[in-house]
Amino acid sequence: MPIITLTSDWGLKDHYLAAVKGTIYSLFPDAQIVDISHQIPQFDIAQGAYIIRNSYSFFPKGSIHIIGINTVASIETPHIAVEYNDHFFIGADNGIFSLIFDSEPDKIIEIEIPQDSDYFTFSTKDVFVKAACMLAKGTNIIELGSPLTELNDKLRLKPIIDENSIKGMVIYVDVYENVITNISENQFKRVQKGRDFVIEVRKNLIKKLSKSYTDVREGDILALFGSNGLMQIALNSDKAKSLLGLDYYESIIITFK
Amino acid sequence: MPIITLTSDWGLKDHYLAAVKGTIYSLFPDAQIVDISHQIPQFDIAQGAYIIRNSYSFFPKGSIHIIGINTVASIETPHIAVEYNDHFFIGADNGIFSLIFDSEPDKIIEIEIPQDSDYFTFSTKDVFVKAACMLAKGTNIIELGSPLTELNDKLRLKPIIDENSIKGMVIYVDVYENVITNISENQFKRVQKGRDFVIEVRKNLIKKLSKSYTDVREGDILALFGSNGLMQIALNSDKAKSLLGLDYYESIIITFK
Amino acid sequence: MPIITLTSDWGLKDHYLAAVKGTIYSLFPDAQIVDISHQIPQFDIAQGAYIIRNSYSFFPKGSIHIIGINTVASIETPHIAVEYNDHFFIGADNGIFSLIFDSEPDKIIEIEIPQDSDYFTFSTKDVFVKAACMLAKGTNIIELGSPLTELNDKLRLKPIIDENSIKGMVIYVDVYENVITNISENQFKRVQKGRDFVIEVRKNLIKKLSKSYTDVREGDILALFGSNGLMQIALNSDKAKSLLGLDYYESIIITFK
Repeated sequence: MPIITLTSDWGLKDHYLAAVKGTIYSLFPDAQIVDISHQIPQFDIAQGAYIIRNSYSFFPKGSIHIIGINTVASIETPHIAVEYNDHFFIGADNGIFSLIFDSEPDKIIEIEIPQDSDYFTFSTKDVFVKAACMLAKGTNIIELGSPLTELNDKLRLKPIIDENSIKGMVIYVDVYENVITNISENQFKRVQKGRDFVIEVRKNLIKKLSKSYTDVREGDILALFGSNGLMQIALNSDKAKSLLGLDYYESIIITFK
Repeated sequence: MPIITLTSDWGLKDHYLAAVKGTIYSLFPDAQIVDISHQIPQFDIAQGAYIIRNSYSFFPKGSIHIIGINTVASIETPHIAVEYNDHFFIGADNGIFSLIFDSEPDKIIEIEIPQDSDYFTFSTKDVFVKAACMLAKGTNIIELGSPLTELNDKLRLKPIIDENSIKGMVIYVDVYENVITNISENQFKRVQKGRDFVIEVRKNLIKKLSKSYTDVREGDILALFGSNGLMQIALNSDKAKSLLGLDYYESIIITFK
Repeated sequence: MPIITLTSDWGLKDHYLAAVKGTIYSLFPDAQIVDISHQIPQFDIAQGAYIIRNSYSFFPKGSIHIIGINTVASIETPHIAVEYNDHFFIGADNGIFSLIFDSEPDKIIEIEIPQDSDYFTFSTKDVFVKAACMLAKGTNIIELGSPLTELNDKLRLKPIIDENSIKGMVIYVDVYENVITNISENQFKRVQKGRDFVIEVRKNLIKKLSKSYTDVREGDILALFGSNGLMQIALNSDKAKSLLGLDYYESIIITFK
């Protein structure tokens, strides 16, 4: 039975999440629901995309991921269902999909499901849940509506890469205050070609990559590629964000010798 | 298999929630447990009632809703199980039930279940969970104890309605800082009879109802009836609570011409 | 099917928890996962131990408890699987186990599971989840690695007991700001032998034990043994921590006459 995951900016206090879960169980009593995160800052599709990118692929193939962030439908931001990497994603095409995927999805379908109510709509509950339960019960994604040819492509928060340097930025700060950049190990290796390098973060210079937080002395700065393949800047046993004064969108510059 | 939902003011850090879930699974290994909310402000039955009111009915008929807020039993606030609208509710009759239901419940039973322990009791775990698992396994609600004839009726936070006006108040502020009032669409329509009106919120005057947040310009104030049937005051793409200086119990006055 | 519980200091915003759950469902689609708490303050094994101690035993025998706090493996803190009181526990032996258990566990196994990746490891996902799923599928714990003879024993936060006094301390503050001490009812009774006593908390003197918060007047201080068997200091209907100025590690002295 496919898993249905939920990601939103609703938080955990309000009734929204429970209303959505109740609706899923009413439509599909055998549903297996897993929360990805409901603590996305309101309307922040960049952070939502980061969290979904780094978790969805661990779920079994065929899982259905509902995205409850900026869900108001408009001509520019239609409700869509997407098939990508053997997973399904349902949400409003507000740009978040282009931040989650590395390449074109296999299918993009504009959802056309009749509404029950005249009331102001709660899109996740009234549209996405229905689409998700149809997929979970075996409906082919192409039956959910009309195919679209491309996603709404938000400027991706990608690093600027040339022959001897990579200029990236901070795209996420985790609960430990480790600072995650948009520079991937693949990008790094492609430019490095075995050369020495300097990573510049504010006034700090880092000249080697660590394999683990404990490769440097307690409180010292380090850079490593995390299990998500992205460079992170951290302090051994301490909080990089506060102590280094780093925050979202701070520049990280790598220069190769 | 019926769903057991949990609502409380325990938060998510302490061991209370896990102790309750572990106890449910021990008594009833096939239980399907869903959290409604554990972020109710401590002892706040009004907010707890609002959240349960707006979520319980989306769950399948026969679901069992445990309410872990102000659970100390006394002669005035007995532990009860209630059947209402084909759902079951279990908690202390501290007034929260009268705020959840719109009409008299079908059955009210004072729970009489022997305790295991001399210790200070954790009522939700030691009483409500047992009652819930008995219901989940098919015990008739009337076997849980003795019937009561009425609920402990707290002053309901109801609007004051006359021929040409409705005076309501803010009863909830959600994660987006939308401000929800206690004025329902039914009440509004009954008094309006097609007439023009003015909604007065602090010094703001609103003269029409919106269907969606985007019916007004970004940052502008609007009133709409949400999917829960209650009037809410919001700003398109902004935070009504902070920017309008609204909070719980603020007055909302509607005058009909 | 055994339950797998999760406890960590990851919080609920980041992708870590979802990545772990997705991995469990991928390895073991029938898994039944329950969150104990993810709000442990970062790296705080004492609070993590308190929460696990007070919740694990309510789960069915055979449950598997994954502990995602301070999980970096080293020679001093190996990854281990432990059998204790018919439950399984998996984590790094950083001292947290010695704080959870009251006596020697039945089995301690150093986990030896091959890694998939060269990347910096996310131990909970890459090691603990595999071990947990093996146990859940019926692998004997002794097949997970090599037996160890003892746990890494952190200084336990135990009270100092003599013939006429017990000197304990605050080890936890719950969501209601009740203050929990490390003094158990067994220890208390063993020293008391029916005598009168005075409990001294800052400048407050308490001369009797209550059975319930409502045994004293509203706002008054009280001491009682909670359902976890530990003495707690509370105010009837108010917040002991803030109002009494108590916090972690504050002394509690009981003198017997």
